[in-house]
Amino acid sequence: MSDTFDIVIIGAGPVGLTLAAAIRRTGPYTIKIIDTKPDPTLCGRASGVQGRTLDFLENMGLKSHIMACEPGKVFEVAFWNPSEDGEGIRRTSNAYSYPDFIDTRYHHSTIIHQGHIERILLEDIAKSSIKVDRPCTFSDFRMVDDNAYPVQVDLKSPEGNTTVRAKYLFGADGARSLVREKLGIPMQLKDPVTFVWSVIDGVVKTDFPDIGIKCTIHSKSGSSMIIPEGRNRTRIYVQLQRTTDPNEELWSKYKQEDTQKLANKIFSPYKIEWEEVDWWSMYPIGQRLAEHYTDRHRVFIGGDACHTHSPKAGQGMNYGMFDAQNFAWKFHQLQNGFAAPSLLDTYEQERRKAANQLLDFDIRYARLFSSRPEAEKEKSKGEETEFMKLHRTAASFTSGYEVNYGTNGLNWSQPAGVVNSKAFDPTGVKLVPGRTFPTCSVTRVIDAHPCELDLEVPFNGAWRIYIFAGDVAATGSAMADLESRLAAPASFLRKHAKDTTLTWENRHGPQSSCFTFSLVYCNKRSAVELNDVARGFFAPYRFHIYADDISASGERGVPGRIYEKMGFDKVKGGVAIVRPDNFVACCLSLEDGAVTADAINEYFQNVGSTVS
Amino acid sequence: MSDTFDIVIIGAGPVGLTLAAAIRRTGPYTIKIIDTKPDPTLCGRASGVQGRTLDFLENMGLKSHIMACEPGKVFEVAFWNPSEDGEGIRRTSNAYSYPDFIDTRYHHSTIIHQGHIERILLEDIAKSSIKVDRPCTFSDFRMVDDNAYPVQVDLKSPEGNTTVRAKYLFGADGARSLVREKLGIPMQLKDPVTFVWSVIDGVVKTDFPDIGIKCTIHSKSGSSMIIPEGRNRTRIYVQLQRTTDPNEELWSKYKQEDTQKLANKIFSPYKIEWEEVDWWSMYPIGQRLAEHYTDRHRVFIGGDACHTHSPKAGQGMNYGMFDAQNFAWKFHQLQNGFAAPSLLDTYEQERRKAANQLLDFDIRYARLFSSRPEAEKEKSKGEETEFMKLHRTAASFTSGYEVNYGTNGLNWSQPAGVVNSKAFDPTGVKLVPGRTFPTCSVTRVIDAHPCELDLEVPFNGAWRIYIFAGDVAATGSAMADLESRLAAPASFLRKHAKDTTLTWENRHGPQSSCFTFSLVYCNKRSAVELNDVARGFFAPYRFHIYADDISASGERGVPGRIYEKMGFDKVKGGVAIVRPDNFVACCLSLEDGAVTADAINEYFQNVGSTVS
Repeated sequence: MSDTFDIVIIGAGPVGLTLAAAIRRTGPYTIKIIDTKPDPTLCGRASGVQGRTLDFLENMGLKSHIMACEPGKVFEVAFWNPSEDGEGIRRTSNAYSYPDFIDTRYHHSTIIHQGHIERILLEDIAKSSIKVDRPCTFSDFRMVDDNAYPVQVDLKSPEGNTTVRAKYLFGADGARSLVREKLGIPMQLKDPVTFVWSVIDGVVKTDFPDIGIKCTIHSKSGSSMIIPEGRNRTRIYVQLQRTTDPNEELWSKYKQEDTQKLANKIFSPYKIEWEEVDWWSMYPIGQRLAEHYTDRHRVFIGGDACHTHSPKAGQGMNYGMFDAQNFAWKFHQLQNGFAAPSLLDTYEQERRKAANQLLDFDIRYARLFSSRPEAEKEKSKGEETEFMKLHRTAASFTSGYEVNYGTNGLNWSQPAGVVNSKAFDPTGVKLVPGRTFPTCSVTRVIDAHPCELDLEVPFNGAWRIYIFAGDVAATGSAMADLESRLAAPASFLRKHAKDTTLTWENRHGPQSSCFTFSLVYCNKRSAVELNDVARGFFAPYRFHIYADDISASGERGVPGRIYEKMGFDKVKGGVAIVRPDNFVACCLSLEDGAVTADAINEYFQNVGSTVS
Repeated sequence: MSDTFDIVIIGAGPVGLTLAAAIRRTGPYTIKIIDTKPDPTLCGRASGVQGRTLDFLENMGLKSHIMACEPGKVFEVAFWNPSEDGEGIRRTSNAYSYPDFIDTRYHHSTIIHQGHIERILLEDIAKSSIKVDRPCTFSDFRMVDDNAYPVQVDLKSPEGNTTVRAKYLFGADGARSLVREKLGIPMQLKDPVTFVWSVIDGVVKTDFPDIGIKCTIHSKSGSSMIIPEGRNRTRIYVQLQRTTDPNEELWSKYKQEDTQKLANKIFSPYKIEWEEVDWWSMYPIGQRLAEHYTDRHRVFIGGDACHTHSPKAGQGMNYGMFDAQNFAWKFHQLQNGFAAPSLLDTYEQERRKAANQLLDFDIRYARLFSSRPEAEKEKSKGEETEFMKLHRTAASFTSGYEVNYGTNGLNWSQPAGVVNSKAFDPTGVKLVPGRTFPTCSVTRVIDAHPCELDLEVPFNGAWRIYIFAGDVAATGSAMADLESRLAAPASFLRKHAKDTTLTWENRHGPQSSCFTFSLVYCNKRSAVELNDVARGFFAPYRFHIYADDISASGERGVPGRIYEKMGFDKVKGGVAIVRPDNFVACCLSLEDGAVTADAINEYFQNVGSTVS
């Protein structure tokens, strides 16, 4: 009898490690994670963490660890183009990384190299005694006749070959994924043109004034990009050549010095001198997308195994981490019997759709980026080039907040064939099923702390049911009806609720590891009496009762900002069912508390029987 | 020949440790710090860190260490009084800890017990290889005929008696200070009435709804106070009795159970049950102030050795830390020969004045707090009691932002007998010499980071000279005159400026450990060309150039908010000379750059010759 695991993860890069870190937060699952390399990444490679990704990492409690590394923060981008007189370069404009219209807490992308991210995640999973087996290589898998652990996985390590069994196998084994190969999934080449880029991380001495912000430089001598990495370190990308031959040998052709010389030509008249070099690399850029993400049963792939593209928009690690997050909570809901197995069908459906959007964007971005400046009509100072326009309109996309899974079996908008259909999509509500639940500052009633509603429940694999309970003076009877109907023996959620005592430790999921409630009143904090509202079915949610009373300018005691932002009625309220990954699932009215309770139960009953 | 030190610190509580941590940031001084107790504090005792103190700790780079402890944060206070029907208690009102009119970044006081603070400071000083000698007791000192190390200090440890020599001796040895006794400094008793209070730290189970916020409770059965400590832990104070006999024996009279029983009587009808008790203590409250803080030469005292009072307003540790900060930078300036020895006269002058204000406040606060509710006229719900009124008006005082040293040899307002007197106190400027330099968010030009101007130079013992350089299009010639005059051979600051190369590491003090410059323009960040403004004498301040372009609501690219807040002319600008402890020293106009340079030099020349 071989060892058994709930999941075996191939690859301990950011994606595999995020998956392990996410799953360990949802329950005491057995996780095996392996990597071919004997050591973790130490420097270089992926480095961009976008706003929505930082939210997720913060929701996992990891943001302070990231900030402790003093990462780079990119608040602005400068666009440099050839000087009008043809000599050298000039700055033609500036833009904010995240323009004001983007709904984010942090107006910067975060630059932290993969070595730090891996270390932080390794330290995190070690808290659940999860250790990466390395060096250890995946060689093959097969399905066997075992209801509990149907995936047999062959592994090779210096100690010899082993076979383990798993409920699920996840390939986070990079662009040349062997798991993908064994699944027989082909990669689609989205664009035959390949650009060859070189990258150097290090400490530079320069008179170039914008070395501290992100820059894109188009000069007569070629294209370059600057990424500030924090602690006085800088990443510089330089485009070496354009090719359509993906197998062209590069490493004999270029050396580090070539990159440095070319950079100085591009930056002329400014000079760049490297005082230290941490890392140097070179790679062709091609856009590829896996045709499937799964065998539709037990074996899945994510991250670079599914999608590869240019690093220019700083997206790779981010999309991979969200693949992991998406899979993790669905895996948990299934293991717990709260959701039907078909829930996992939505993994490929949602994540491949997002990757496809990314690749389409990336093709346009990379082509424009790599285009010779003479290819684009020269613009006078201040006028927007195609590239700048794309940068600006793409910001909500690159920041990660624009991802839209659309409606599907999980994300309900005007659902058909539903008994309580009239309770869904109340008039005026601006939340969009399939899109991110917005950031919102509220005041916690129990201790008067201002806090961020979307981060209040840590990522734990549980659904977040937000009861926007309106005006405390008006919704008493609706809330009483809602509460008693949810507590009734026939209630789907009641059946899945444990009878545990509320403690400080279990406050985020006192009734279940699969769902949790929060109550948000449209009142000044001190108008909400804790002992009056934390009653009956809602009594265990004493630590998750909030007042929407912080104005846009930060003034306290002014109700209504979040209600307005989300479009809920300030008196009557409403309900938002939000997925464990902070995407909106559906919105409900709260006019008749009993109907609302039935609609909530109907939604989850559907998740529990079939997600179609 | 005995060991010699720049300073010997007696006592390794928060005050002594803060002094060591502050001094080590100013230069490579030799520091000996001892403590009688064999181990650091582990729990209980002082716990309140006020807003202005958190700013200082953040300026020392220690805020993240404090926040890593998940301290309590007190955003609101609830006032409870006897119920109208005479049975039990009712909440009569709420207030913000720091009302909106207080200029602070953080609208909360921070509750972290002394054990954490000591650990954080011990870890900090260990970075300079400073270790507390413990157990080690101070026994006496004497002045000897030694120009370099005139203070001879006798110490006792289990290994035997030793004698060391020091330039300075600092007694941070608490309320029963032996250093103070040896100096022969008497304590003034400010109020003969003593209240006896008891305090319990622990985890409670209760139906009292406001257990998560700070509460003051006046009931027919006595008075109490709740302080949330974070991580579900609570501190509860209970008043045991009133006495005028300071020597009354208490420990045989009361037990922990008495406190718990009395608390339940006071909180009735709510119940309080202790699941865990971390610490229990009992103490009489008396207000005392040392008549002097120094022998006016080489021996100084600070913290509880100088002032004792009630812990109710959470001030003790804060005032002690500011004693340490005030002494530290003056010590540094002296050692460096940048300031005259008479600078240290201002230590007692400023800190004793602040303590005196604190004690006057505390007497009123403690008396009102301890007064039986029937002693105060009953008010109907919503009406403000004397106590509530004092709380509200005192908030700017208790938060630490209201401390005002007034004008003296350091803080110049309309200085007499000054050659360049007309350059001082430009019309409209709202900064007050002797008061805290306000918080202000600006954008750093070099990397587009939003940042807090008052925290940009870490606490390092250096003066902060802020050139509010107005509109970059208007002040070019004034700035050129200022720069060249400062750079002239006759310039006092030039004489004290080293010719070092700017590096990332020395960026906060490229020219001197005693002063540093920052330039703040009233423009959008991208309008300030780094290579144009970081020139000549200002070239080394490339990392300290800012744009005042963040509006009150956080909108970017909108110039003028800080100029308006401080009252500087948005076109012509002005200068603020700010002390190393972030108190305003003086303000200057920038109409004529040469005159401004002369005025800056005149101010520092005065500091360098005599501070009177």
